[in-house]
Amino acid sequence: MKEERITLAHGAGGKETTEILENLLFNRLDIVYKRVKGGVGIDLPDDGATIPLPDGSFLVVSTDSYTVKPIRFPGGDIGKLAACGSINDVLVMGGKPIAFLDMIVVEEGVPMSLLEAIVDSMLKVLREERVPLVGGDFKVMPKGGVDGVVIATVALGLARKPIIDAELKPGDRIIVTGPLGEHGATIMALQHGIDAESKGLKSDVKTLTGIMIPLMEKYGEYIHAARDPTRGGLAMTLNDWAKASGTVIVVEENNIPVRNPVKAYSEMLGIDPLYLACEGVAALGVEGSRAGDILEYLRRLGCCKASIIGEVKKSEKYSGLVLFQSAVGGLRILEPPTGVLVPRIC
Amino acid sequence: MKEERITLAHGAGGKETTEILENLLFNRLDIVYKRVKGGVGIDLPDDGATIPLPDGSFLVVSTDSYTVKPIRFPGGDIGKLAACGSINDVLVMGGKPIAFLDMIVVEEGVPMSLLEAIVDSMLKVLREERVPLVGGDFKVMPKGGVDGVVIATVALGLARKPIIDAELKPGDRIIVTGPLGEHGATIMALQHGIDAESKGLKSDVKTLTGIMIPLMEKYGEYIHAARDPTRGGLAMTLNDWAKASGTVIVVEENNIPVRNPVKAYSEMLGIDPLYLACEGVAALGVEGSRAGDILEYLRRLGCCKASIIGEVKKSEKYSGLVLFQSAVGGLRILEPPTGVLVPRIC
Repeated sequence: MKEERITLAHGAGGKETTEILENLLFNRLDIVYKRVKGGVGIDLPDDGATIPLPDGSFLVVSTDSYTVKPIRFPGGDIGKLAACGSINDVLVMGGKPIAFLDMIVVEEGVPMSLLEAIVDSMLKVLREERVPLVGGDFKVMPKGGVDGVVIATVALGLARKPIIDAELKPGDRIIVTGPLGEHGATIMALQHGIDAESKGLKSDVKTLTGIMIPLMEKYGEYIHAARDPTRGGLAMTLNDWAKASGTVIVVEENNIPVRNPVKAYSEMLGIDPLYLACEGVAALGVEGSRAGDILEYLRRLGCCKASIIGEVKKSEKYSGLVLFQSAVGGLRILEPPTGVLVPRIC
Repeated sequence: MKEERITLAHGAGGKETTEILENLLFNRLDIVYKRVKGGVGIDLPDDGATIPLPDGSFLVVSTDSYTVKPIRFPGGDIGKLAACGSINDVLVMGGKPIAFLDMIVVEEGVPMSLLEAIVDSMLKVLREERVPLVGGDFKVMPKGGVDGVVIATVALGLARKPIIDAELKPGDRIIVTGPLGEHGATIMALQHGIDAESKGLKSDVKTLTGIMIPLMEKYGEYIHAARDPTRGGLAMTLNDWAKASGTVIVVEENNIPVRNPVKAYSEMLGIDPLYLACEGVAALGVEGSRAGDILEYLRRLGCCKASIIGEVKKSEKYSGLVLFQSAVGGLRILEPPTGVLVPRIC
């Protein structure tokens, strides 16, 4: 019998990743070892974990690791990506970021100036966000031990009431705060040797602080789910939500904002932009009766491309699925991403 | 001019690591971006950070990354090492571990059975310690993108009063809870192709819960500093302490517990066991008048090799240094570790 080995698909963030994580981790632990009592742990697929604190508030903790080729790209670099990505994970859990930790692993021989530039990008974000770097780790691996630079991060935040995506309800509307697939399309183009910038492609990497903090203050009670659709794109986010909440989500192509350069490039490669990573967009599940007000407010916050793209419904038959209403009329299932979608882009 | 590049020494945990971290991170940030107000951050070299919570207690957060060759060794494997190391970092900050997160990066082609065994070792520790795994990340890198398996961890804990190593005071005694250098000697022997087990070498990797929790309950107010001397060994720990507290630490060779196989192997390689990593030992700085009672209590907790190895003194001339009183009579400075000491062992 041939021995089973790890493949790239196991780490691509799609179905194979879900399966290996279930086999390796989730199924091997009783529920009491999957979360702190009263909080969210690995029992729910969310952006981070929550831990109840003695005063009734919640600690939000999120962790992620970043490897991207190329290390610098139009719109940012791995340092900016790591800081923004981790801060965003706390924000979309309803938390206010309070502290950040980094773990940098560098390959021997990397130019010092490159490492300095990456770290500067990361620190610039932390300063702008007023989030202190409270700890970290630094390791060097021999040539071939790691490819370039890997940054793992931990972001901590405090939330009065965390946003638990599983609380999405029938009647809710799905909103995205900006156009989709910008980061994913840019990195894939670069990996195919295409001059992304000249094609109008640029990563959207940025923090969501200016959107999520005022939104939570004004409409916090009406936000039932929030996520930054990074690895696996919006398709992954919506499939997770439908599964976790036992609903069906119906989205309409006509309403989904995708910029023309991303559309053109996706068509060329035969990739649906809904599977491409965003690094500066939030997907929201909001109370249906407030969706219009919230959209209006998002536009005032500067999200001029924000859009209500779909609705959450109850359905025996389609529970846990995402349905896609195409512009030309057909309705199809939007599958969760599988295989090696967008390797090493975030 | 030749461009400066990253070398293995930059990541070895010694002087070069301190220098690159100062240049890359510490010197580029104002103090307000190095810690949460009222807590410990990267402004102090400690095992983790502390964050004041609204109720007056502290969150302790520690992060580390683990790469070790070989992945399995007498006494444990990288999974056990990662769980124990991270839990110990919280314990020696005076915290009770409450949650754990893991980030696993695997190289394409690693046998599934190996990964399963590693994860099982990690989960076994978490179950025994009753610490839930609340989140994490999983990535696969193409062949050559990472060497085997890298595990990064985050451990969170709560402390009523954290142990801040910089609070070490003249008059304090230094205690170690067990013999030194066991893990480091074992891994180095294996890397040199020596059958470690047959030479009586075995990693000491274990959690310090059974020592630190009762010790903090009974003698918490008298413990001024605590650390698990991993990378860089006891020499690194004591140099950090002397520097952070502005004291001089004098240790006596005669009182330092090192088992014979470790001593023999260290002599063969010409390495001082004080520079070798321990993974199941705590170094403590305790109130001088209570040192005897604490030693007695540690013995009752099962630390039969615990020993008072030195004293903290005030000195203008030697402030920030560690002095080593050798068994044959000489007194010399115990330098902080430099260069590639023990690459990739913890």
